[in-house]
Amino acid sequence: MRVLLAAGATETALIEGISAAGASPELMAHTPAADAEILAYGEPTAAPVTPVSPTGCPTPAAVTRSVREVIGFDVAVVDAGLAEPTTAPTVDLGADVAPGADVREDEAVPDAAAIFDRAHGYGASLPDDELLIGETIPGGTTTALGVLTALGEPTGVSSSLPENPLERKRRVVDEGLAASDLEPGACEGTPLEAIRAVGDPVQPTVAGVAAGALESGTGTAVTLAGGTQMVAVAALLRHAGVDAPLSIATTSFVADERGAELEAACERFDCDLTITDPGFDAPEREHVAMTRYCAGEAKEGVAMGGALSLVPDGRMADVRDRFETVCDRLGIDAERGGEGGRGS
Amino acid sequence: MRVLLAAGATETALIEGISAAGASPELMAHTPAADAEILAYGEPTAAPVTPVSPTGCPTPAAVTRSVREVIGFDVAVVDAGLAEPTTAPTVDLGADVAPGADVREDEAVPDAAAIFDRAHGYGASLPDDELLIGETIPGGTTTALGVLTALGEPTGVSSSLPENPLERKRRVVDEGLAASDLEPGACEGTPLEAIRAVGDPVQPTVAGVAAGALESGTGTAVTLAGGTQMVAVAALLRHAGVDAPLSIATTSFVADERGAELEAACERFDCDLTITDPGFDAPEREHVAMTRYCAGEAKEGVAMGGALSLVPDGRMADVRDRFETVCDRLGIDAERGGEGGRGS
Repeated sequence: MRVLLAAGATETALIEGISAAGASPELMAHTPAADAEILAYGEPTAAPVTPVSPTGCPTPAAVTRSVREVIGFDVAVVDAGLAEPTTAPTVDLGADVAPGADVREDEAVPDAAAIFDRAHGYGASLPDDELLIGETIPGGTTTALGVLTALGEPTGVSSSLPENPLERKRRVVDEGLAASDLEPGACEGTPLEAIRAVGDPVQPTVAGVAAGALESGTGTAVTLAGGTQMVAVAALLRHAGVDAPLSIATTSFVADERGAELEAACERFDCDLTITDPGFDAPEREHVAMTRYCAGEAKEGVAMGGALSLVPDGRMADVRDRFETVCDRLGIDAERGGEGGRGS
Repeated sequence: MRVLLAAGATETALIEGISAAGASPELMAHTPAADAEILAYGEPTAAPVTPVSPTGCPTPAAVTRSVREVIGFDVAVVDAGLAEPTTAPTVDLGADVAPGADVREDEAVPDAAAIFDRAHGYGASLPDDELLIGETIPGGTTTALGVLTALGEPTGVSSSLPENPLERKRRVVDEGLAASDLEPGACEGTPLEAIRAVGDPVQPTVAGVAAGALESGTGTAVTLAGGTQMVAVAALLRHAGVDAPLSIATTSFVADERGAELEAACERFDCDLTITDPGFDAPEREHVAMTRYCAGEAKEGVAMGGALSLVPDGRMADVRDRFETVCDRLGIDAERGGEGGRGS
């Protein structure tokens, strides 16, 4: 079992009101690097910030790291277009991988096909029996909406904000499609075109690794660890003609928001769905980080739902204990939460 | 506990008869990348070769990986001047890190000071309680001899070949010092000058990470995992004025070759010394890879001795079992050994 984290950036995240993955636009650019370092080392090392939402909810990387500290699993972070440097160990797929442009530009990911090919080769090279693939990319639910719309698929997506700015995202995507001279549904069966027009560089990375692992003949099982962003990757894979078994593992927070729609999407794209509840509403827990997750902040990301799905029965309380420790280490106060995106 | 692997290259390795880390010069350039992939994934993924000596002895990475599969430990591979690409996750310290030149050029590592500084910052940023730092760099014992000579320190070094070509190495180092207008001992107290003149890029990386970790005030314990190359790093650190406690952990194969000299060097540089015997001469083992290690091939590298030192009492037979499995996976035949540096 290996957890792969595709970490990248899109300028789409800088559009006002789109993302809560970081307290300010300047600091948000460091979120994927910081998430990678938290997963690898337990805290940010080179990144100048601990990602917390404007209201102080810590990044899902803190949850994924907590699971890792309890049960242990191998990690590989793939550079899928990081905007800022990191000292987390990262897999370098090649020079074509760069942060994505704003989807309202003509091309959001000009090298989508090359990224997919390199990621495919990498995925095919991995000897693991089981891969769990997550993402960290601020703005990723908007680009998920982008590719789903371009593919002509149903387009509900989740949000890292408690009030989902879905209408705003739809307007951004509509502008993006118009800028690329595309109608909704125009990219049916041509998923790399959809990414190139209105996607982000994490999408061809995750899809490529998944397709390569599934098609290599070594029988690797692939779980897409995430919510609506991974539904979009599943759609991309199915439109690419990949028909191997595929699973999605996400959190109860995503399911609480999108329940029936999520199940319908998984059925549509022929994915097994696993939903895991970390029990942050346990009555003895009053840590503000857990309270904020229960209030619908953050919800998912950095393979959180997939990591939680690996926790054996009876160990979730250990994960919650560890999450408190990790929050302490990250300077998230149990009563007041994190200070929005403070530098270190 | 984290095992850090500094992986790099020096053109010094291309000098005839210097190194056994790969069967041919062309394939040897891939050895550090392949070692990193074996440690990270269990087998080469992008590297086109499994490193085996000309007589078929597998890389020490296979031993270190076997230990990892038995006891589990976190790994971070640092790009310390890789000559060929790898898909192992690597830490990128910055653009100054490049393969080293032949020590017989004027400058072997022009950016030694910048590499040390970046590595220092990285080492200081790590939250680990304990770091074990290894290396993979063909030609590294010659550059170790280089810096020891430049520092004016005793200069016995080990070899990956059963018959150590020490006189050849000494001639290369003498030429290297002459090309840099230096007498032996000229770099006493100026270790970065020694590296710049006749060292390799792995040396300032390992020394920098070690110094940063030791000086960060977090109380990180540092073990240099290797033989004579790590003695050279210890010398560099002491000449840099780093006086914190330092340990060296190596294999019985190095100790068998250099016993008293190794102990004297550790005393001289105030290092604790741990020697671990993997028991490859156990009577029930007839695997040719073990036989070759017992005959004095390879001896050490890729943190092998340090990894072995982590194995709890009573688990070494499990490591030997696993080593046979890893050799199978790498295509090393139990009776015939590996075919020298075959491509995959």
